[in-house]
Order: sequence, then structure tokens, then C-alpha cells
Amino acid sequence: MSLNLLVRLKLSNRPGTLAKVLTVIARKGGSLGAIDLISASPSHVVRELMIRLRDASLLEELLKALEEVPGVQVLRVADRVFMRHLGGKIEINSKRPLTNWEDLSLVYTPGVAEVSETIAKDPNKAYKLTMKGNSVAIVTDGSAVLGLGNLGPLAALPVMEGKSVLFKKFANIDAVPLCLAVHEPDQIIDAVAACAPAFGGINLEDIAAPKCFEIEERLSQLLDIPVFHDDQHGTAIVTLAGLYNALKVVGKEMAGVRVVISGAGAAGVAITKILKGAGVQHIIVCDRKGAISRDNPPAQPSKRWIAENTNEACVHGSLKDVIAGADVFIGVSGPGLLNRQDVMKMAEKPVVFALANPEPEVEPEEIYDIAGVIATGRSDYPNQINNALAFPGVFRGALDCHARTINDKMCLAAAHALSGVVTGDQLAAENVIPSVFNENVVQVVAEAVKKAARETGVAREFPNHANV
Amino acid sequence: MSLNLLVRLKLSNRPGTLAKVLTVIARKGGSLGAIDLISASPSHVVRELMIRLRDASLLEELLKALEEVPGVQVLRVADRVFMRHLGGKIEINSKRPLTNWEDLSLVYTPGVAEVSETIAKDPNKAYKLTMKGNSVAIVTDGSAVLGLGNLGPLAALPVMEGKSVLFKKFANIDAVPLCLAVHEPDQIIDAVAACAPAFGGINLEDIAAPKCFEIEERLSQLLDIPVFHDDQHGTAIVTLAGLYNALKVVGKEMAGVRVVISGAGAAGVAITKILKGAGVQHIIVCDRKGAISRDNPPAQPSKRWIAENTNEACVHGSLKDVIAGADVFIGVSGPGLLNRQDVMKMAEKPVVFALANPEPEVEPEEIYDIAGVIATGRSDYPNQINNALAFPGVFRGALDCHARTINDKMCLAAAHALSGVVTGDQLAAENVIPSVFNENVVQVVAEAVKKAARETGVAREFPNHANV
Repeated sequence: MSLNLLVRLKLSNRPGTLAKVLTVIARKGGSLGAIDLISASPSHVVRELMIRLRDASLLEELLKALEEVPGVQVLRVADRVFMRHLGGKIEINSKRPLTNWEDLSLVYTPGVAEVSETIAKDPNKAYKLTMKGNSVAIVTDGSAVLGLGNLGPLAALPVMEGKSVLFKKFANIDAVPLCLAVHEPDQIIDAVAACAPAFGGINLEDIAAPKCFEIEERLSQLLDIPVFHDDQHGTAIVTLAGLYNALKVVGKEMAGVRVVISGAGAAGVAITKILKGAGVQHIIVCDRKGAISRDNPPAQPSKRWIAENTNEACVHGSLKDVIAGADVFIGVSGPGLLNRQDVMKMAEKPVVFALANPEPEVEPEEIYDIAGVIATGRSDYPNQINNALAFPGVFRGALDCHARTINDKMCLAAAHALSGVVTGDQLAAENVIPSVFNENVVQVVAEAVKKAARETGVAREFPNHANV
Repeated sequence: MSLNLLVRLKLSNRPGTLAKVLTVIARKGGSLGAIDLISASPSHVVRELMIRLRDASLLEELLKALEEVPGVQVLRVADRVFMRHLGGKIEINSKRPLTNWEDLSLVYTPGVAEVSETIAKDPNKAYKLTMKGNSVAIVTDGSAVLGLGNLGPLAALPVMEGKSVLFKKFANIDAVPLCLAVHEPDQIIDAVAACAPAFGGINLEDIAAPKCFEIEERLSQLLDIPVFHDDQHGTAIVTLAGLYNALKVVGKEMAGVRVVISGAGAAGVAITKILKGAGVQHIIVCDRKGAISRDNPPAQPSKRWIAENTNEACVHGSLKDVIAGADVFIGVSGPGLLNRQDVMKMAEKPVVFALANPEPEVEPEEIYDIAGVIATGRSDYPNQINNALAFPGVFRGALDCHARTINDKMCLAAAHALSGVVTGDQLAAENVIPSVFNENVVQVVAEAVKKAARETGVAREFPNHANV
């Protein structure tokens, strides 16, 4: 894993000292960011250097080598990630200042009693008068934290706080981390249902397959607010959006392409379903054992659905076998599963979405010249399939029309709208998906989601009761 | 109930029109706050008036009377409380800006993975690296919302949001409302225990007696973070603080005074316990049936404790009976239980804390000349016993030393420190308790609570791991 460091050095004020320092850094595999001058005296200069070390294990060597440069002393080494996390990443604030008795009497007793009684008589007014109209709970039990596995709820908390930052940054949504100390589906469902009243939506995150399917489904039925497992549907929406555009680039049609998906967990299942909803006819899904087919169905319910609804020809074999002739490869599995030869077996101008993070299923460098369109989950390659392109706009739209749920039509609408953010003249092999910092994304996606919610009858519009 | 209004009027620009409007307002029992000029033209002026109407039912009459004034048109009437609540009162923000890919990689993937792994190896680091070091969950099931009864979790939400505003305003604590849709003690305990990992403390609020006692006790045993029912202990701490000072004013001693408490619910039980802890020897507690005594013990466990630990002489009778000769009356019950004659039966210079809200047990106006010190729960009388004087400092102190619990010693220390904020030269019959806006309160209380936490071995200090 790489390290993001802030290294504070005291350098004797002799010409060439800094140059020697920079040489050492380069030699030890560090890449240099900003250099700040902290203080200067006739004899010494203190500088702070941002260094990204590709290999964390080289830290000791780097520091030793720096100290060996004549006239150099290492004053302090801080990890920029850790510094960014000191005190946590989110805070709860009052929306308006509270300065005196009058404010207190409006915001707390006795004024607040009016509001409580009003909501007791008409619960829907909570959407206008409380945080419920703009809030989402980010729920995890820490059983599948990023790609790191079952680290538990406390270790998951920084990821959930980060998600909250993204919800606020991109969609102005107030998102509260709920890191659950329980792990059985029944217990998770009970805990979420118990806490639901204050929220307008639930985002399930980093909950392991296959229990995530049951949890999402049962909570959706139980609650009258949307329940959305981002690892499933966020990934699916953005993947479909990218695919819409990639097929335009390579000149193929949804209904005609042969798609091979590697990975039958949360993302793989959801991608399969959304592709079918979008009109894709020919899908083969591989898990570790190979192609899933109906004549040898897996035991697990989510995989059984795949067996019954894909691979109509009952093709058998490993990923490397069934990839032959495919137009589209979508990887949501692990690193190093395919190589250049495998991609050469695909149809012409193959679309390759290798989304395993941090190491994709196939190295883009190996296939640049033979692929039609390449996408990964990484920000250091073009076409990053990033869930942050979907969940903010999806929840913004759902909250704004008080949708009871986020259904398939809303997800399809989101994917279609997202793909359209890349306009015709911008569309290219290296530009099939917008950047997360594209300011049009959330509004476009939210509008499409609201429209689909209304068309499918799940939107709830409440009368406007701003005045007495 | 009173109404806080913003009334927007269009007045013809004829002299005397506004004067007539003000007369009407006064006649209908309104009191006037700010008057804003919104716009002016040669023929008309638009003004916005803040009006507090003592009796909400007079609103229609007032508006009708205003419209009847020649040259006056009512443009808009807004309830200031409702306007203050539009969109809810709290929001979740990122502590630092997120502007580019670099920020994203520090705050989310891949940087955040480091932090997750670190916490997985050493869970205590969560206090430094996540919101856990500064966060409290405000938990209610809405079964005892203010004085309004069992309104349920959604109607309780505005009160919990208001509490969150106070936590942030006074103690800079991030407080998250958890409004539970479950009501059995087991269910409440399960839900809170499930959600606990992200929080440094739990504030129970507006949960009805007697289940609140069991819930607080069992959660305290289950969790390694403090669990504090403010309706019990916050009230008790501030009451004791006020009593320390009131007894100084009237020249009596804790150990010598005879105290009568009206109300054996959450507050009554907690006040009884803290007074005993502070050295009060003679306490009689009355519920609706009268004085609780050990020769006729109530069934309910919390009241049985009172029976076994107070009223050593086994005095029987109603509140009006047992008040005779008492030095201190503390009311945490309902309105109109005592009158002037009753207070005249008390010892000389009686201390009367009539804390029922909004209408106290006895009207202060009736007893000004015969009471030694009077306190209420209201902000429009001197000596307001307001829980906001306790819970911010108590939680601030507990969070700062990562206390495992908030125990009796910490509550006693808080009460003592709070009473000391009123310095000797400021102490007077009308000044026995600081104002909630006194900026010294939180720090003084927090320091005392931390000290007591360390002395009782419940503080946890973790090594400082700011650097790599």
C-alpha cells in the first residue's frame, strides 16, 4: 500500500542540500508533491515536503537515507491520511445560530413543543420540519469493508464518515454513519428498522454478500423509506452508464452484445440485473468455479437467479474459456484473472471494464492497443467507474420527492441520465463516463430519478404547509 | 400555548395606521417584538411584526381585528417556531473542504483503507481518528416527549434535534438523534447496543419511567461508553447545584435540612439519590398517593428504593400534610399542588424549587415574600433549573477522558462545580444558579467531571499517536 507523507526536514543552508534530498526521495520510489518553507535562518532552513511513497515498507529506508545526507535532519514525519482523520471527518452543526433566550425558546422548549404536537397529528409534516427530509443513514456491520474483508463496525467507521463527506459534498445530503455491532440478518434488520424514523433513506454499505441481498430486500418491504445497497446498485448504475457510452464508441447495440461478467457477489448480481433491464440479451456470469449455468445451479439464492436468467446456451468453463468471442467484459472480482491473450480472444473492439480495486482483473497497459474501450475503478486511469457518480444523485432525487423506495426503473433512469452527461462531441474511447467532480451529474441524475419515481407511483408529494 | 408569529402587513401610508395596529395587538393579548420595514411606496408601507400571542386560540380574532383596521391588509402570517424548523435544525458537514482528487484519495479510497486497518488492529485509535472521540447519540422512543406524553419517535425528533443544537452550542459535541420505533426495554437496549460503535456516549432522553431506569442500568453494564439519562441525572445535578447555593443564602446545612420532594418519576428518583450522595439526611418523597414510606412500599422497583432509603420516620400523608416544617421543597411533578398556606407551613426561609413545566407546583408570585429562595424550570423567572447547565459539561468531561461511564461521583462533582460558578459576591436569593449562556459553565463542569472520572478509575487515556 502507498503512503502519503508530510516530512519536515531541517536543512543546513548549504547550496545543493535540497537537491540531494530530492534525489534520495526519487531513488526510494517516492513522488514529490508540494514543498513548503516553514522557517529560515542564516544557518538553516526548515522545509515540509509532501511525499507519496509507492511502497509503505520502504519508509524506514527512506528516513535513514535522508538522515544520511550531510546537513539534513528529519524533524517530523506525519501521515497525511492520518492527519486528515484526526478528530474524525464529520461534524453535526446547527443550521442557524443560537445566540440568546429567544432563539432557545424557538428551537427548544417551549417552542419546539408546538412542532412535536403538529407532527404527532400529521407525521408527514416531519419531512418539512425535521432532518427527515434531507437525511440518510449509512448502515454497515463492517463485514465487507472496502476490499479488506470483515474488519467490523469500528474499523468501518472511517469509510462511513468518508461516505458522509461525499453525500454532503455532491448532493448536500446529511448522512449519518450507523456502524452496527450485530451481524445476523435479523439483528441488522431489527436495528435499522428501529432507527429509521429520523431518516429519509437508508444506504447499506460494506455488508457482505450473500446476506446483503436478504437484508436489503426485507428492509425495503418493512420500511416506507428507500433502502439502497450502494455496493450493488451504485456500481450497477455507473457500470451501465459507462456501457451505454462505450457501445456508442465501438458501434454496437445493447441487445446484440455478448457480455461476460466476472464475479457473482453484490456488484455482479446487481450489474447482471440492470443489464437485463437495459435490454442486454446475452450474459454469462463467472464465479470462482467458472461460468454459472442452469444445468448446474449453485445453492445460493442470488446465484441461482443468475443461473436461471443468464447463459441461455448453458456454456461451461472457466473465465478464460468463456471470454472467447465476448464483446464486453465486466470484472467485479479480483486481480490478474485475464491477460492480453485472453482479451485477444474477445470480439473486435472489445469493451473491457476491469473494476477490481486496487488491482484490476487485467492491466490496462497490456491491452491499450487491442481494446475498444477500457474502464477501471481507479482514479489514475481514464473512465473511472466510481459509485460517487450515482448514489448522491439517486438519493437526492429520491429524497426530493419523498420516494417510498428506489426501484429498478429509477436505477435505469439514473444510468441513462448519467451516460447523457457525456455529450456527443465529448464522447470518446477515453471519455465514456463523467468525472465525479463534474457539477452537472447530481442534478441530471436526481431529475431523472424523480421523474421515474413519479411515473412508477412511488413518489409522495405532501401539501406545502409553510404558513400557519 | 403561546404562539410566536411574524405578521406581514400592508398599511396605507396614512398617519396613525400603525398606532391603531399596535393598539389592536395589545388588546388581543399580543406582545410586540421587532418591527421590520419591508418596503415603502408613496401610498403604502409593508411592515413585518414579531408578535407573541399568549393564547394561540386568539389568532383568528387577532387577524380579523387587524383586517378591520382601515387601510390595513394582512399579507402573510408565519409561525416563527415553524419557520425556524423548516428543513430541520441540524446538518452533517465535512470538517474540512473536499475539492479535488487528492482530497478524495485522503478522505476516501484508497487512503481511508489505512485508517480502517489501523483501527482493526487497535480499536482505541478510533477515539482519535473518527467521530467517536466527540460524538453522542441522543436516544428516545418518544414515550415521554417533554411534558406531552407518549407522542412517539417521529414527534420526538424536533426535540432531539434541539438537544443536538444545545450539545453543539454549549459543548461543541456532535450529537446524533436516534428516534427509535421500538418501545419494549429489550428492544430499545438491543437497538442502542447495536448502534453504539460510532459513539463516545449515549444520552437517553424523553423515555418514560419506570422503563427508563432498567434501560439505563442495563445499557450501562452492556456498553463501555457512558449512558446517561438526562431527565434523571441532568435535572438532579442542576437541582443539587442550586440547592448548594440556596442553602448558603438561607444559612442552613445539607445534613440538617428536611427535604420534601413531589414526584417519584425519573427526576424525583435521581434527585433523591443525588441529595443522599450529597449528605442530605431527611428526605420525604411524595407521589400521587402521598408520602412513600417503607411500611407501605410501592410495587415498582425504583419507588421501592425510595421507600427503603428515605422517610426514616415513616411519615404518612399527602404532600400538603408532610410539607409542614420542611426546609426545602423540590417539585418535579405537576402544576397547582401547593399554595401560599402550604408554604407558610414550611420552616422559616423555605427553599422552594417548583420545577414542573410549564406551570410550576406553586406560583412564585404567591410566595415571594415568604420564601427564602425560589427556583423554577422557566426562563421568565430568576433561578431557572435548566438541564442545559449540566449535560454539555458532563459529556464534554466524559468524552475528553474517554470515560467508560458517568458515575455518581462524577455527577456530584458536576453539581458542586456548577454551584461554584456563582461566586460569593454574586450569590443572592435571586441568583443561586448560573445562566445557560454563562460561558464558564461547561469548562468548569467538564474539568470537575474529568477529575472525578480519574479518581474513580473510569477514565481511559490512550497514547498519543499523531505521528507515523
